[in-house]
Amino acid sequence: MSAFDIDSLAFDGRGLIPAIAQTSAGDVLMMAWMNAESLARTLETGEVTYWSRSRGELWRKGATSGHVQRLIELRIDCDRDCLLLIVQQTGPPCHTNRPSCFFTAVRDGREVTLSDPVDGAA
Amino acid sequence: MSAFDIDSLAFDGRGLIPAIAQTSAGDVLMMAWMNAESLARTLETGEVTYWSRSRGELWRKGATSGHVQRLIELRIDCDRDCLLLIVQQTGPPCHTNRPSCFFTAVRDGREVTLSDPVDGAA
Repeated sequence: MSAFDIDSLAFDGRGLIPAIAQTSAGDVLMMAWMNAESLARTLETGEVTYWSRSRGELWRKGATSGHVQRLIELRIDCDRDCLLLIVQQTGPPCHTNRPSCFFTAVRDGREVTLSDPVDGAA
Repeated sequence: MSAFDIDSLAFDGRGLIPAIAQTSAGDVLMMAWMNAESLARTLETGEVTYWSRSRGELWRKGATSGHVQRLIELRIDCDRDCLLLIVQQTGPPCHTNRPSCFFTAVRDGREVTLSDPVDGAA
């Protein structure tokens, strides 16, 4: 065991690292990006905070929607260039109000929708 | 349902899209990158083929190690800029011979190794 140092991660040329959010039940919810500051904030507060590439600012997940993610455990891959966040999700994680952002499957060359929007979540 | 068109995906400026590999049991194995050609190859053959950024070439997973990934289902996220591959993994997916690339956790500010290398796999 060694102390975890955020600077030991392999951020890309933009200072970003992909972060996959998964429930402890195994459902993959979404993938977004973090920078060093958003990861530090996540570890300090326990509330998952990404970096919004489109807005160019810290993005505390659920700040607007209330659909927050509480960090259960941070995991790092072998190349230290991808993160896996085990989270407790409040409400739907997806802006479409579905229980995962990965709600489209490709079957026999056609797109199939796997889940419907949840009403009145969170 | 509409026909799936690879060109409808939101590849980044390098022509790449992140792809998360997960087993049907829910274990997240790894994250790597695909370009349009590698995804087409994956769908044609059923053998997961990434794009190696370091080597600049198609990378059929397990071509050297035998630790192949058979595609069970391709899923696409809401922004169409990330893929989730449900796969059947032969042998360990990680070059360290561990059952997931995400074998390092951060607990109480320290790194903890969650799994050991598997001997004689595949």
